[in-house]
Amino acid sequence: MYSKDIQKVLKSKEIEVGDEIRIKKEDKVYSGILMPRIDMGDRNCIVLKLNNGYNVGLRFSKDMQIDLISKGIKSQEKKLKPILYDKNKPKISILSMGGTIASKVDYKTGGVVPRFTAEELIESIPELAEIANIHGRQIENLLSENMKFSNYEKLAEEIKREVENGCDGVIVTHGTDTMHYTASALAFAFEELFIPVILVGSQRSSDRASSDGPFNLICAAQFIAKSDFGEVGVCMHATENDDFCFIYPACKVRKMHTSRRDAFKSINTKPWALVSPQGDIKFFRNGYRKKDKNRNTVLKNKFEEKVALVKSYPNINSKIIDFYTNSRYKGIVLEGTGLGHVPKDLNKALKKFLEKGIVVMTSQCLNGRINMNVYSTGRELEEIGVIPGEDMLPETAYIKLAWLLGNYKKKEVEDLIRKNLRGEINDRTL
Amino acid sequence: MYSKDIQKVLKSKEIEVGDEIRIKKEDKVYSGILMPRIDMGDRNCIVLKLNNGYNVGLRFSKDMQIDLISKGIKSQEKKLKPILYDKNKPKISILSMGGTIASKVDYKTGGVVPRFTAEELIESIPELAEIANIHGRQIENLLSENMKFSNYEKLAEEIKREVENGCDGVIVTHGTDTMHYTASALAFAFEELFIPVILVGSQRSSDRASSDGPFNLICAAQFIAKSDFGEVGVCMHATENDDFCFIYPACKVRKMHTSRRDAFKSINTKPWALVSPQGDIKFFRNGYRKKDKNRNTVLKNKFEEKVALVKSYPNINSKIIDFYTNSRYKGIVLEGTGLGHVPKDLNKALKKFLEKGIVVMTSQCLNGRINMNVYSTGRELEEIGVIPGEDMLPETAYIKLAWLLGNYKKKEVEDLIRKNLRGEINDRTL
Repeated sequence: MYSKDIQKVLKSKEIEVGDEIRIKKEDKVYSGILMPRIDMGDRNCIVLKLNNGYNVGLRFSKDMQIDLISKGIKSQEKKLKPILYDKNKPKISILSMGGTIASKVDYKTGGVVPRFTAEELIESIPELAEIANIHGRQIENLLSENMKFSNYEKLAEEIKREVENGCDGVIVTHGTDTMHYTASALAFAFEELFIPVILVGSQRSSDRASSDGPFNLICAAQFIAKSDFGEVGVCMHATENDDFCFIYPACKVRKMHTSRRDAFKSINTKPWALVSPQGDIKFFRNGYRKKDKNRNTVLKNKFEEKVALVKSYPNINSKIIDFYTNSRYKGIVLEGTGLGHVPKDLNKALKKFLEKGIVVMTSQCLNGRINMNVYSTGRELEEIGVIPGEDMLPETAYIKLAWLLGNYKKKEVEDLIRKNLRGEINDRTL
Repeated sequence: MYSKDIQKVLKSKEIEVGDEIRIKKEDKVYSGILMPRIDMGDRNCIVLKLNNGYNVGLRFSKDMQIDLISKGIKSQEKKLKPILYDKNKPKISILSMGGTIASKVDYKTGGVVPRFTAEELIESIPELAEIANIHGRQIENLLSENMKFSNYEKLAEEIKREVENGCDGVIVTHGTDTMHYTASALAFAFEELFIPVILVGSQRSSDRASSDGPFNLICAAQFIAKSDFGEVGVCMHATENDDFCFIYPACKVRKMHTSRRDAFKSINTKPWALVSPQGDIKFFRNGYRKKDKNRNTVLKNKFEEKVALVKSYPNINSKIIDFYTNSRYKGIVLEGTGLGHVPKDLNKALKKFLEKGIVVMTSQCLNGRINMNVYSTGRELEEIGVIPGEDMLPETAYIKLAWLLGNYKKKEVEDLIRKNLRGEINDRTL
């Protein structure tokens, strides 16, 4: 809620949250959509969503000139056309987890709309109905930085339900911040899966001309409808242009830019394929699991909470490792430097952690492979029991270790963490 | 020391550490240089440095066949040619901090040689003497993962000494793991500097045909001798080939591959220039400080130890923030997701830390800029006092915050962390 002073002015001008307004303050003029005041904010500060899509906060003062440009679009109960089932088209289930891709109405009216039906989706992206029979459900409405293991567990169960109900593929709409973590979590959680599960996000919200959400969704639907791919992948813009998307492998993909539409990149491998919104598909490599509706889906969706991802850096204090030892953590993924090193000051603390726990080494270089045999620092770590993470991404290794510890005994975990289970480890580095 | 069993066999064959040997075990044959056994290692395991440059550990067994191929080169006191001073050439000081680039003798004999003179260097890379009058000193002999703030402080002082003694440029040879952290530490530590300080490393040790150390050193010397550049930079292979090096900006460079020779990349900016070993130089952009031997060097080389770099990830426990609050840390650099987010579960703990400390937000995307105004998660963080780190690399922001807290009052730090001081923040993202 805005302060009483602000509310009074807004009321006098018949301005409501969601309206487009103009504010003149000193020499500057701002115009945009009036946003609601969030709980923790300064209540005497007006938040505007500018035309470039970003928000600005303006401290209220009596000499501010505030004018209405146009009334906002009211969310209303529209009568939507019923969708006719077409038995010649595949069935695709869209499960929404929230994020920018689900934030259209949020931005226009300032409120969160906790509803996401197939009808609404198809009305906003009519191309989807031409590709497949779409069925949609909202699972969560989260900004993806707030995703937790419990969300992974629930999402995997919901996907299993869709698969068992006979769908030909699942699209998960998801915030982009942690989409790569979720992709690997789903890849591990499905010990058997023969149906495509494609994660799709949006880097730009739907009130911006450059929004990439609809394009990514259409490409994902085309890929499910027209390929024989049967595992977890990520479908996002391949370039800054609206030309095609890449299908990225679930365990070797990473968000590599804060704002670009082609923010996602495969690391240490190529994307699986490119796909155009017209349904042209070109695979770059083989070796993916093929779609097979007759095979069963097996879920192992527990994730151990007592696992940490610790980035190493010069002058890091070894007490941070002791903290995890004392908190009875079961696993640590180290994000070391170079080929897999941390300052030797950490060795003693790591040795203590390793009495009960598991430590896996990855590299903050991201590209390339761990090799702890080249330098004494690495050899010493390996000799006290730190497991080299090969060419796994730190984020993937973290999810994998949490998943392994959630479903297997320690001895098995120590064995399985070294093995390639879901494409997270390549035999050799590209 | 190896086990008695191994020592006995080695003695009977007159094999010593540093010799080239062949080991036949079951069906496999290994040949390489016998390495010394490190303290923490399995003493009954023979370590060989293979021809590909990597080490392998072979568990000793009685049926192993071990043969001498050739005796190793003994380190000896060679009589080196005196170097004649040429007043027409610039003076370059090479300060060695250790790392792969200084590891030649280490690998051949298995021992660490704590000596590094200009004569030895020029004997192994005679091209250097044609470019400049070279003077060299060893400051440390560290694998760079073991670098600490105290090493930065000392190195900066030694560079200042060289500059005050009238050199035209300083080359710092350094391990590559944390070279980018050191580059930014030096950039900040010199509040005034008008002499080039170029960090050079090697991704492959000098006993490998693909060693990049000499090439990088020659390019750095050429760059110092033939350009007007007068600040801190990094000189490393631009491509996988021996064609040219890039000069990277000290605060916007990062090791992006564990093993490739062109592992270093500029992030959110271009390299300053390319330089060939023949001395051809092409600048990609301007705006660097120009060399000026008449201006004074001002050093502020204190770094605050109570600063942490914390990477965020799904399901992270907020107690890790409490740990730093309770340990009276003064600063935290968060490596958040996307535009600068962490799970909202951390907000309460961060708010408590912020009562006394400073928190700066960076992104694990690495590329792009922080913008905490787009989503509620970011706005809430900014409202409790988290400072957006703009387009700073997490590693640079960590070094900058430690440096600011080491030299300035809290109020000043909160102001200066937002300002571009050494090229660590761009006005706009490329």
